[in-house]
Amino acid sequence: MNGADFIYGRRSVLELLQAGQRSLHKLWIAENTHGIEEILRLAREHGVPAEFVSRHFLDAKVQGHHQGVVAQASAASYVELEDYLRQLGSTAPALLVAMDEIQDPHNIGAILRSGGFFGVSAAIVPRWRSAPVGETAARVSSGAIEHIPLIRVRNLAESIKELKDAGFEVIGADLEGSPIHEHRPHHRTAIIFGSEGKGLRRLVRERCDKLLKVPGEGPVASLNVSASAAIFLYEFCRRSSTGRAPVL
Amino acid sequence: MNGADFIYGRRSVLELLQAGQRSLHKLWIAENTHGIEEILRLAREHGVPAEFVSRHFLDAKVQGHHQGVVAQASAASYVELEDYLRQLGSTAPALLVAMDEIQDPHNIGAILRSGGFFGVSAAIVPRWRSAPVGETAARVSSGAIEHIPLIRVRNLAESIKELKDAGFEVIGADLEGSPIHEHRPHHRTAIIFGSEGKGLRRLVRERCDKLLKVPGEGPVASLNVSASAAIFLYEFCRRSSTGRAPVL
Repeated sequence: MNGADFIYGRRSVLELLQAGQRSLHKLWIAENTHGIEEILRLAREHGVPAEFVSRHFLDAKVQGHHQGVVAQASAASYVELEDYLRQLGSTAPALLVAMDEIQDPHNIGAILRSGGFFGVSAAIVPRWRSAPVGETAARVSSGAIEHIPLIRVRNLAESIKELKDAGFEVIGADLEGSPIHEHRPHHRTAIIFGSEGKGLRRLVRERCDKLLKVPGEGPVASLNVSASAAIFLYEFCRRSSTGRAPVL
Repeated sequence: MNGADFIYGRRSVLELLQAGQRSLHKLWIAENTHGIEEILRLAREHGVPAEFVSRHFLDAKVQGHHQGVVAQASAASYVELEDYLRQLGSTAPALLVAMDEIQDPHNIGAILRSGGFFGVSAAIVPRWRSAPVGETAARVSSGAIEHIPLIRVRNLAESIKELKDAGFEVIGADLEGSPIHEHRPHHRTAIIFGSEGKGLRRLVRERCDKLLKVPGEGPVASLNVSASAAIFLYEFCRRSSTGRAPVL
């Protein structure tokens, strides 16, 4: 986690919430902190999740005088899934890449870079339990976050239903899936990648229309998630009958 | 660069050279250092390049009392290209991945991991101007360095000739190449990946039999080298008429 991603102190956090230009990913408030009503109101208004923690937790998180208020900033700005799908309309082809619980910001940045290279339509990043799209991911993405709409969702398992209703085929990248090159891509596809250690969560797996894997015969059991994503995006872009998915 | 990769002090470096179990990547000697005749003799014998530098350079490199002798260890052990090719024989299919001037040990480790997943026959790592296969690359490789023979060469441009003589088709990964999926793999292939910033060196490019690229239509101009390597290895392993290349 990059230290530059943290903003702290009542005034700094308040100003950021008021300006609203840079999305905040999370907010931590020390228990028994006073004078933060406006911060909490704006956080609610902008949908920034706030968590109450011990003062000791915040002391460990940042070096400076935090006054009981620490925010984690995002280097990117986000759109809501509902708004994205409305803008997309009902017929346009689209390829979405979704990251579920990916912990390493290098992997998030690398997946966004590959997404930007192949021209994915948008990327879905859950708000909880994933690393935020911070300075590190932004740098590694090599400018991709300037081009790819980032859709932030509260619960990816829930969002799968919305995607299906909007005509998406939802694919899970999973070692137990069928070989990716045997699959014929749908004109609207969302591909979900799970965490580095554990892969897809059970509920997310169950809700996917189909599980696909990159087949390998070597002595190493798995690919890094960003290498796997690069291959998935390559295959889907190359084999898609609709050609390149449009960037909205 | 991982600090754990440096060994220093006359006695430690001498013991390592005498044991010969862990390859040394490079040796730096401070000018006007005495009592190092045996170290220099063993370094020559084992083909470890030694460079004479200022004492100040070594002070900056390691924190401890280096006595004018600092070595960079490799977490891997190596084979010579000549020995590898002799063992391979004249007919067995093989897929080699070669890294030229790749600077980031994370990328080296990631390429080795993908190589291990797809079952490449061996990896070629130049001794100079590339990051060594150190602790970081070993960790990121996810065990691949235990399985893939690492071939260390002094000059990759020179080695291309040896590879061609041994019946290899030498492919350069290059943005100006033809699309990778149009290529029909040879039963013996070496694929070369260039540095993160500049790609292949001119001489290496010129000596390749063919340049291939991963085609992309998105707004980001290039893939990360390890993402590119993952796609190349996927395509070559999937499309190779000979099936999996054997690990010797």
